[in-house]
Amino acid sequence: MKIEVRKNILATNAAMAAENRKRLAAQGVCMINVMASPGAGKTSVITKAIEGTRDRLNLAVIEGDIASEIDSLAIEAMDIPAIQINTGGSCHLTASMVSSALDHLDLGALDLIFIENVGNLVCPAEFDLGETGRLVIASVAEGDDKPHKYPLIFRAVDAILVNKTDLVDHCDFNLDQFREVVGGLNPGAPVIELSCRESSGIDAWCGWLETKAKSIPCD
Amino acid sequence: MKIEVRKNILATNAAMAAENRKRLAAQGVCMINVMASPGAGKTSVITKAIEGTRDRLNLAVIEGDIASEIDSLAIEAMDIPAIQINTGGSCHLTASMVSSALDHLDLGALDLIFIENVGNLVCPAEFDLGETGRLVIASVAEGDDKPHKYPLIFRAVDAILVNKTDLVDHCDFNLDQFREVVGGLNPGAPVIELSCRESSGIDAWCGWLETKAKSIPCD
Repeated sequence: MKIEVRKNILATNAAMAAENRKRLAAQGVCMINVMASPGAGKTSVITKAIEGTRDRLNLAVIEGDIASEIDSLAIEAMDIPAIQINTGGSCHLTASMVSSALDHLDLGALDLIFIENVGNLVCPAEFDLGETGRLVIASVAEGDDKPHKYPLIFRAVDAILVNKTDLVDHCDFNLDQFREVVGGLNPGAPVIELSCRESSGIDAWCGWLETKAKSIPCD
Repeated sequence: MKIEVRKNILATNAAMAAENRKRLAAQGVCMINVMASPGAGKTSVITKAIEGTRDRLNLAVIEGDIASEIDSLAIEAMDIPAIQINTGGSCHLTASMVSSALDHLDLGALDLIFIENVGNLVCPAEFDLGETGRLVIASVAEGDDKPHKYPLIFRAVDAILVNKTDLVDHCDFNLDQFREVVGGLNPGAPVIELSCRESSGIDAWCGWLETKAKSIPCD
């Protein structure tokens, strides 16, 4: 007998993700799954989006980490609801974890929920959370070869953010080459360059986000 | 009935890791498992070690990646044997994958094997590969909060390398704070600062490595 553990795990996850998606659609809430390596700037990218859209959108954040509450405390300090999920050892969030987090949010009062996934370019790409949109952040400091090494995540997203562009002169990162490779993997996904540190490119990022949030029909 | 999948996977892995360790000890070969986030500089750190020790040590590299052969081609270009493992979707190497790679190396002719693990701060820390030593590389560009978020890997290693110190003035990285946190998690592990880009700190890194390699009794 062959036990199809992985297949079963993904099927159970997909069913729960469909539930989450239905629940959000009923309330007209957009949910964006933010994925990246550790330290690529997920929290900063979310923080900049909060600053740039909070006068037009009602926001909340679901924070996924192996351990610690550092990021959710930073979000709460901005007076934005933040639900921390500590996965223990698990290297990705699951739809079931997100479902539990949604129980703690007032969905009727929200327009947009960010999910900050665990810092990892591998497994998060395989787990549907019921999100409306997914994005990956690549940091200039990581080098431009990441799409070659982690192709699935660059294929699985609706947008690709290139963060820390202020470091581009100090790192071996060829932006044209990066754009060419991700263009091949995922021709439909916009590539948005930004520097959270220097607050550049934030308008393009917030613009993408608002268009996405508005595309969700409200009831 | 409860199926203890994870427990069984780790037990099977541990048995194979013990086999690998025995095999290496019989030939007096040291094997170092290099772990880090994507883009922290694993290949650069290994490349610098090859340059710094190749006149005294016979070296080989086992390269773990989800996809691509970029890193093993870089190592082979230095005339060092490199075995590429493409894990497909898996976010970490296993002892069994490493065992297969060892089959392709002439162990009797080697002093030191590097394993470049998949770029991930989570799962690699849980899988014993039969290595003689383990290290994690933290890049300054990732920020100094990573030990809080990924404590297991910082506890599970024999040395902690802080790479890209040339970027320290451009990033929010407090080296004293980082040292304090990792000192609490893993008091015995040396913290070695280096910049592969500017070739600083390489002597300390190679020194640690040679001491480690010499501690393996040869037959």
